[in-house]
Formats: sequence, C-alpha cells, structure tokens
Amino acid sequence: MAFRLNHPVVCLLACLPSLWSVADSGNLLVVPVDGSHWLNIRTLIQELGRRGHSIVVVAPAVNMNISPGPHYTTKLYPVPYNQSDIQAVKPHVLVKQTFYNTVTTTFKKVNKLKHFLLVTCESLLYNTGLMRELAESAFDALLTDPFTSCGAIVAESLSLPSVHILRGLPCGLDYTSAQCPRPVSYVPRMFTGNSDRMNFLQRTANFLMSVTEPLLCYLIYSPFDELAARFLQKEVTVKELLSRGAIWLLRFDFVFEYPRPLMPNMILVGGMNCKKRNPLPQEFEEFVNSSGDPGVLLFSLGSMVSDLPVEISNGIAAALGQIPQKVLWRHTGEKPSTLAPNTKLIDWMPQNDLLGHPKIRAFISHGGINGIYEAICNGVPMVMVPLFGDQPDNVAHIVDRGAGVALNIHQMSSDDLLDAINVVVNDTRYKENMMRLSSLHKDQPVKPLDLSVHWVEFVMKHKGAEHLRPAAHELNWIQYNCLDVIGFLLAIVLVSFYLMIKCCTVCYRCLGRTKKQEKKKSD
Amino acid sequence: MAFRLNHPVVCLLACLPSLWSVADSGNLLVVPVDGSHWLNIRTLIQELGRRGHSIVVVAPAVNMNISPGPHYTTKLYPVPYNQSDIQAVKPHVLVKQTFYNTVTTTFKKVNKLKHFLLVTCESLLYNTGLMRELAESAFDALLTDPFTSCGAIVAESLSLPSVHILRGLPCGLDYTSAQCPRPVSYVPRMFTGNSDRMNFLQRTANFLMSVTEPLLCYLIYSPFDELAARFLQKEVTVKELLSRGAIWLLRFDFVFEYPRPLMPNMILVGGMNCKKRNPLPQEFEEFVNSSGDPGVLLFSLGSMVSDLPVEISNGIAAALGQIPQKVLWRHTGEKPSTLAPNTKLIDWMPQNDLLGHPKIRAFISHGGINGIYEAICNGVPMVMVPLFGDQPDNVAHIVDRGAGVALNIHQMSSDDLLDAINVVVNDTRYKENMMRLSSLHKDQPVKPLDLSVHWVEFVMKHKGAEHLRPAAHELNWIQYNCLDVIGFLLAIVLVSFYLMIKCCTVCYRCLGRTKKQEKKKSD
Repeated sequence: MAFRLNHPVVCLLACLPSLWSVADSGNLLVVPVDGSHWLNIRTLIQELGRRGHSIVVVAPAVNMNISPGPHYTTKLYPVPYNQSDIQAVKPHVLVKQTFYNTVTTTFKKVNKLKHFLLVTCESLLYNTGLMRELAESAFDALLTDPFTSCGAIVAESLSLPSVHILRGLPCGLDYTSAQCPRPVSYVPRMFTGNSDRMNFLQRTANFLMSVTEPLLCYLIYSPFDELAARFLQKEVTVKELLSRGAIWLLRFDFVFEYPRPLMPNMILVGGMNCKKRNPLPQEFEEFVNSSGDPGVLLFSLGSMVSDLPVEISNGIAAALGQIPQKVLWRHTGEKPSTLAPNTKLIDWMPQNDLLGHPKIRAFISHGGINGIYEAICNGVPMVMVPLFGDQPDNVAHIVDRGAGVALNIHQMSSDDLLDAINVVVNDTRYKENMMRLSSLHKDQPVKPLDLSVHWVEFVMKHKGAEHLRPAAHELNWIQYNCLDVIGFLLAIVLVSFYLMIKCCTVCYRCLGRTKKQEKKKSD
Repeated sequence: MAFRLNHPVVCLLACLPSLWSVADSGNLLVVPVDGSHWLNIRTLIQELGRRGHSIVVVAPAVNMNISPGPHYTTKLYPVPYNQSDIQAVKPHVLVKQTFYNTVTTTFKKVNKLKHFLLVTCESLLYNTGLMRELAESAFDALLTDPFTSCGAIVAESLSLPSVHILRGLPCGLDYTSAQCPRPVSYVPRMFTGNSDRMNFLQRTANFLMSVTEPLLCYLIYSPFDELAARFLQKEVTVKELLSRGAIWLLRFDFVFEYPRPLMPNMILVGGMNCKKRNPLPQEFEEFVNSSGDPGVLLFSLGSMVSDLPVEISNGIAAALGQIPQKVLWRHTGEKPSTLAPNTKLIDWMPQNDLLGHPKIRAFISHGGINGIYEAICNGVPMVMVPLFGDQPDNVAHIVDRGAGVALNIHQMSSDDLLDAINVVVNDTRYKENMMRLSSLHKDQPVKPLDLSVHWVEFVMKHKGAEHLRPAAHELNWIQYNCLDVIGFLLAIVLVSFYLMIKCCTVCYRCLGRTKKQEKKKSD
C-alpha cells in the first residue's frame, strides 16, 4: 500500500505514527518512596528497562533499600540525616501499653515520619543542580508513589505527565483527587476494619470516619501543601497536584478489595510482584523437604519492622514449638529463649519461591499488601498479626474472604497463636478459599505487570491520558452536586407558586368585590 | 513436582483447576436482539466458536439478519408475525412534518416496536418444548443484549449467570441496575446532546432529563416487568433481573465516550467489530482507484433504515454531484433523478475494508455506533445525519471531538451537505482529530474482541463473577444514601442540644430561686 506523501491529508496516515519517539523507547523519571513501597516500583521499572526504556531514579543518598539495578540509573541527592535517623522513624512493635501511651507514641511517630519525608522532599526540590539536570533531560513522563506527594511536585515543576502507583492514601486523598465516587454506605473507610457489608452501627462508624477525613488530610498533607506552594511559587495544594495524575496504578484487585466504583484512569495492578516460582536455594529446599507430611509454615513480619520485644518473640517461639510443622521465621533480633528445634531463624528468605512450594501449609504475616498478594498468587492461607498503616484493613479483607485468621500482637497469647495456626492448617476451608481467590486472581486478560508497563508506556507515548480525565475536575463542589441547579429550579417553583397564590388572591378579591357591588346594586 | 494426593489439603492444589469443564470449552446460550445489535454478538460468538466453545443461539423464525454460522447452532422459534410486520416496525425517514405529527408518529412507532419485542419474547418464553430443551442443555452461561430484557428473563428462569453486551439502555437502566454512579453534573443524559462540559442551562436540562428517567423507564419497561413477573411466577422487575448480570460488556471506550465512573463488572469493548482490512473485491478496488487525487466518499445510513423519501434522496444526490470526489452510496430505494456520474449506488459494501483504503476521504453516516467505531479504527472523518435512538448522542460525541460534522436530515439543503463534505474533506483538522482518536483507541493492552472473549469465558468458567458484584445491591435507597445514619446522628445532636438547653434552664431557674431565697433571707 503506497501512501501519496504529496497529499496533505493522506500524509497524516504516514506521519502520525511518528508521534512516539524513535524506536518506541521513552525517557522515564522515577521519584520513589523508600521501604516496602520501593519493591513494586523496582519490579515495574526493571521490566520497563528490560523493554528498552531509559529510566532515571532520584533517591535520597541515605535510604533503606533503594539499590541500583542493571535496568535503571540511580541519581542520589544528599540529605541531612543518617541511617540511625532512618532506624528511628521505622515502625517499632511495642510491648503492651496504656491507651494514652499508645496514642501519644503513635502521634509522635507519625509526626517524626512526616517531618522526615518533608526534609527528604525539600532536599530534592532545593537541589538546584539536580533539578536543572532533570529539567534538561527531556523526560516523557514521571512515575511516582504519591505517598509523599514529592513526585507530584516534581512533575508539576518539570511539566511532566505523571503515573501514580499506590495501594491507597490515608484519608482517601487518592479518590478525592481522582474525582472517584466512594459511597460511604458500602465502601469501607480506612482504619475502620469494616467490610463492604455493614450493619447500621458499622455504617454509622464509616460515615463518621468519612466526615473526619478532611481533617485527617489536613493534618497529614498541610506541610506538603505549604512546601508545594513555596517551591512552585503559586497557590496550589497537594490534592490539585495529584488530580493532574494521568494514570493511577492501584496495587489491588477485586479478589482482595471490595467492589466499588472506579474512574477510567484507575488501573488495577494488584499482584504485580507475583511471579513464577524459581527453584529454592539448596539450604531452603532441604529444610522444606525434611518436613514430611506436616509441611512447613513461613513467618515474616516484613522488612519495615525493627526487632520484636523479647517477651513477644518468646511467646511466639513457644507457640511455634508446639506444632507438628517446621517453621521458617524471618527474625533479626535476639534469639528467643523458648525457640524449639522445629523453628529455623533466618534474616532473609525467597518468600515467593517458598510460598509456591507445595509443602507450605500457611503464611504467618503482618498483612502487608505485597505478602498478601504473594499468598493469594500461591494459594497459601494466612495467620496475620497486623502492625500499622493499611495492614489492619488488609488483614480484615482476608479474614472476610475466609482465607485467614487475624490476631492482635499485643493481646495474643501463645495459645491464641497456636489455635490460629492449627485452625488455618487443619480446617481445609481456609485453603479452599485461598485457592478460589488465587484462581480468580490469576484469571486476568493481562498480567498486572504487563498492564502496568502498558499504561506507563501509554503516558510516555501520548504525553498523558487526557481522554481519560473526567470533566468533574472543572467543577466546584456546588456545581458537581448541582446545588446551583436545584436552587434555581426550587426558586422557579417557589416563585411560580407565589405568583399563583397571588393571582388567586387577587382574583378572589376581585370576585368578592364584584359580588359585593352586585349585592349593593341588587339591594 | 509430585502432589501427594493422599493428603486432603495438598489434594486441592491438584483438584481445583478442574473447576473448568473438560478441555476448557464451555456451553453458551445466546439470546440476541435482531438488527444492528446482532452484528456485535455475531462477531463475538464466531470468535468464541472458533476457540472451541459450544454455542446455541435462540432466535425468532422470522427475523431481519440473524443468520446461521459455522461456529454456532441456531434454534429458531415460531413467532406470530411475518417479514412485512418487521418492515413496519423498522425506522423510516419521514419527510419534514409538523412537531405534533413527528411526536405522535414517533410515539406510535415506539409503541409498535415495544409490542413487537414483547410478542417476540413471549413466543420464546412460552415455547415450552424449546425452553425444556434449553433447561436440559446444561449451559454454563447466557450471553444477551439487554435491549429487550428477554435474555435476562431466560437467564433467571434457567438459573444461568449472564453476560450483557450493549451500547446503552434508554433511561439509564443499565447504570441504575449495575449500581453505577452517574453524577448528573458531568455525565450527559441520553437524548440531551450535551457533552461532559455543560454550561448552567445545559446542566439544568441534564438534571431535568435525569429526573424524568424513572418515568421513561416505566413507559418502556413496565410491560417487560409484567411479563417477567407472570412468566417467573414471582414479584420481580427487569431492573432486578438486569442487576444480576455478572458482566456488562459496554460497546464504547473513552476515546468516544466522556470519562465517567464505572463499576468493576463493566468492561469496555468499543470497536469489537474493527478488524484488519481485507483486500477489496475487484469491482470496488477499480472504482476506488479510478478516483485520482480527490479520492472517494462512502455514504451509508445503515441497514436498519428503509428507503429515503424521494425528495431527500434527490437533494443528497444533487449535492454529491457537485464534489470532485467519487461516491459509493449504499442506497436501496428508487434511483434519484439528480444522480451524477461520480456517484455509484450499491446495496451492500465491505464497509470496514473500504474505510481502511487510503483513498477514502470521509464517511457520510447516520452515526450508528458500529460505523463510528469503524471510522475511528480507520481514522476517517465523518459527516453525520443522525436518525433515531442513540445516533444523535453518538454524533454529538464525534462533533465534540472535532472529528466530524453533523446535519439534520429534515432541515439540511443540498448546499448544507455540500458545505459539510467540503469542510470535512478539506480542513485537515478533522482528519488529524480522527487520526488522534484512532491512535488512542488502538493503543489498548488487549483488543476489544479478545477482552470480550476473556470475560465470557471467565463467566462460563467461574459460573459468574460474584467477586465483582458491589454490596450496594443489598442496600435500599435510604441505606445507600445513608439517610438513616444521617437521621440518627441528627437526632442525637438535637436531643443532646435539647438536653443541654433543658439543663441550662433548670440550672438557671435553680440559681434564680437560690438567689431569691438568699435575697429574702438577707431582707
């Protein structure tokens, strides 16, 4: 088929495909968040790098786990803190305390974390050399985890379309920014532990939580609002910056999350980290195979938690010593005095490869979203001890699906843990339910990682995804809810009613006067 | 990897994949709607058939175009009408009439169509032999176009999970059935011609249209409510039956439609009919190639419209005679007396193959959704003369995207048509905009047809898609809007306020009395 390039209209047929840069490879800037958040971004950019895109990650020079990789370039910027400061803001599991102490400690911790994230962001934004270099690099798009809002400020500063990747923001700022409806009657709010099927009191609690969300948003994000306005030299809020995000890659699906409305630019990519299991290192393979019929349990509270208090780890070790299964426990603190021979302490494990092994009977976890999806992928039922953040909500979902049991780390005894393990291992319904979730989760038209890659490439190629942006962004609260229209129509009805009454009164009076006159005449 | 099948837990790993029937092939029952609606279902079931599924289509023995095919079995049921009755309910383009005449004629036509669809559905439901045969056939799922609600009644009767495929239902019954929010401030209602960016008066019109939707739904669907209740022998409405649909395959995407909230079980499959163009039959290839630089226009008002009134077709032919392009006009009525040599009348054309030819300059169409997507796929700008149903809304979308021009068939003169053609052909912005839509539309992670196949297979395999069903279905209107919670909280606030006032009054009185007594004592 020969295009006639001398014709202006037909020419477009040949010319337009060149919208996309040479050889279909793009330049992506990545502003990640440290810790477990980094793991998903790393998986995604490794895949993008493998597909030939040029990727630059900007990260604080002092960080937890943002390591260099073969498929991306890392640019580090200096920060005014060191590794021990990072250890200080990492969550700690505390021994049981009074309610007052728990609240004040949590409040102090959150404030410390907020200050830490703010300082990190300032260190990037006010690093003029690096920011100039980024501005000159002609990136096609920016990929960020909006947990800290820093990526959104950089995207605005460099006028780049952005892709957000996240599990969810506290106070629902992600949904309000994306103009996504969240009916409070069946969309449970964070920190309530509600499912989508609530009784009257649960709905009341959910409603009250939704009412407090704006205050929560203010408490968490107002320092970033101030930073954004100061740095960008204009009146702008984090919510406005986030609302300009082209695509939201949400790290869940409806096998795990409760069905709720979504906007066209929200893409579900839960389970992005799940992959085909690799053979186990010999040490692990031997340990697992030596477990016989009872099999093995995996136990990990994730990478974010510092050492457990000794009394808690002793209680856990005592419970683990009473089960017929062998246990692999990812544990970095002091060796518990009650540790039994069936339990092996390790400081790292190939979690996904182990979960995919047929000898694994259950996964004892803190309920982080990555671990939960690895369990779903591999169909392993769970015993969960949620610690902080979104973990209590994540855990509530798995309990609601009948695929796991939850425990409170501060209230559980050794017997509680023992009972929970025995129930999850021996009651086949937990395994069946997890296998059902696994089967549904895997039956997708595109794998979550490929879907994520597609949408990042889409945004790089088309410089955004403007056609997916709802017009709701251009309406204020009154217009969005049509209160002006309702007021206008009510005014018309009231005025019409008033005029009708007035007419009737006038007519009635006229009629009365005429009758009187007639009566007078007849008299 | 050897599974230990004697272990009850591990056994599940091996046993669960057999949920899906042997050799991954399913049994699908199809209850289609005749006319242009059938074209999409045919494309989908042909592909499903090619992939090895067993498909049975039930259709009225007298129909427009539900023809047998190599990949599905057709079971015809007798109906109490003949081909001339079908011609009588097909839409006609009328010569210009008074407003009163237009309204009464349209009303009569719609009533006749409703009665016709009802009779067709009754003929299927009360065909006890066929219904028994279907009940005994062990289908895995039912695929239907919910335009007539008949498929939903059959699905309920046979207890089959259903997949709905549709462009949209009048009065928004699809969205209310699926519990999908439709904010009236930026989601234009059918028949308003509004875009998603409305001024105050347009929003008012949209609001008023949304208020009349329940009445419209009653007028259209109440006979089907009655039929469903009578046949199923229980109190049930069409809305309830539709709400049980497992998956909604919506025949649009956000390249064409305005971005709006969606529910998890709504899948966008617009452009399912678009395919790679095949070589043209020699007769067409020669005609197209003989057009030289000016190129060719395609003109089709679809298969549903009977012959045009002579005065309209003469006006059109006169306009077409004045353009430098050649024209292929799908026209079945009397040959217009003003027909010029550049225009060739045909009664059928390979529309997609022609639209994909580089010599095609524009597509003159009625604005049916299939034709629009073929134009988007092939990047051909449009001149549109909407006739009925969703066509005026479809056309408004393409005009709003700057990819076409709309005309009113009753008001347009030959010069209007001539101007419209010249503008669309010569102003390159129309072509550019359509090419942009085409580029966005084609950049999808999965092709619409493959996506449709995936979700039908999903429903057959998992016997539904229960995990995508929102809990909103279990709430009544008061609960959904949390009016009970708001009332309860208001009552608490009012009672607290009342008690506080009461307390203050009592305290004040006590204080006053004490002071009086003190005064008396001191006196």
